[in-house]
Amino acid sequence: MLVLHTWTTPNGKKVPILMEELGLAYELHFVDISKDEQFEPSFLAISPNNKIPALVDHGAAGGPLSIFESGAILEYLADKHHGFLAASGHARWKAMEWLYWQVGSLGPMLGQLGFFAVRAKEKAPLAIDRFTEEAARLLGVLDRRLSEARYLAGDDYTIADIACYPWMVGATTMMKDVLADALAGKDSIARWMDELGARPAVQRGMAIKPPVVAG
Amino acid sequence: MLVLHTWTTPNGKKVPILMEELGLAYELHFVDISKDEQFEPSFLAISPNNKIPALVDHGAAGGPLSIFESGAILEYLADKHHGFLAASGHARWKAMEWLYWQVGSLGPMLGQLGFFAVRAKEKAPLAIDRFTEEAARLLGVLDRRLSEARYLAGDDYTIADIACYPWMVGATTMMKDVLADALAGKDSIARWMDELGARPAVQRGMAIKPPVVAG
Repeated sequence: MLVLHTWTTPNGKKVPILMEELGLAYELHFVDISKDEQFEPSFLAISPNNKIPALVDHGAAGGPLSIFESGAILEYLADKHHGFLAASGHARWKAMEWLYWQVGSLGPMLGQLGFFAVRAKEKAPLAIDRFTEEAARLLGVLDRRLSEARYLAGDDYTIADIACYPWMVGATTMMKDVLADALAGKDSIARWMDELGARPAVQRGMAIKPPVVAG
Repeated sequence: MLVLHTWTTPNGKKVPILMEELGLAYELHFVDISKDEQFEPSFLAISPNNKIPALVDHGAAGGPLSIFESGAILEYLADKHHGFLAASGHARWKAMEWLYWQVGSLGPMLGQLGFFAVRAKEKAPLAIDRFTEEAARLLGVLDRRLSEARYLAGDDYTIADIACYPWMVGATTMMKDVLADALAGKDSIARWMDELGARPAVQRGMAIKPPVVAG
């Protein structure tokens, strides 16, 4: 059994999308970061960085395996189940470079933009300008890539697309005002978002929600 | 032949360290980011995000292969040459989770701290406090891990250590004043840095320098 410890943030939705695409059976365990549940000792034991998501694969070869970091989890499940990532060759590394690009650039920079431009009560213009500019640059990189290829890795839909999609939903909803200029005319991003957003597995992964607790 | 397009920054030194550890023959092509050389069209063709490093493997299976993103390059070379990353099993995924942690957290957060606390002429206290606090938290995560295991992945030295080391050199040199409190008493980090810093391949990788041009 796969148990994913997660929350309803962009990083928390990537793995549910992949598990839905792969048709896997899994359980979700919601870690409410608005209540600091990520700092509980039981979660720290599987996620030493105190961040969601973390996966526990009770059926892993060699015994139960916990993995933290969404990029590592995507790669693990794709390799294990032979889906959405080529096992070797050029196709694998084209997907991997864009997956690392999401993990190292698109995610952190949009995350900081969300903090400084949207969530922070105090406004720091230097930081808002820096992250708005960097986010705009990254959206340009993404749009250029998607103007030359159907998907990030080329002809095939991969975990690189799955990693970027929830962040781009954030960019075009929560951050749409601050990114209005940067998003204008990015037709290839819009085409790719429409295509991914129409996939039932993507819709199910994006819709994860903690159970309603009575009382 | 392997050609690495790089510069003398933490991300630029990771791959030279690994190539030295693996005993590979390679050429370095220096992309002087202080002169904006990363924006030249010839570099964009292999690095669509306009960042160093980027690798071209002229001897790749299936024809010449370019890869950008330091994490993807480390993983590619480790897999190709069967070194510093297990091919499968728990050992592989323990290394991968910490590699992604470096790419998604340690690198971006120290990078932003370096900008706001060291390089920026204008001071934005909200940003300095945010990134100082997050860097301190990450150093705590790293130290805790290295207090329970010799290396990040456990018993074996891997590309996860190689990815973190140049950033920790930056944290303990360029950023040592702003991180003085956070670094105090982090004995496991200090032990690990001493051990890695004594490796000849690490020393050679950290020492890369562009050729001196006469005139």
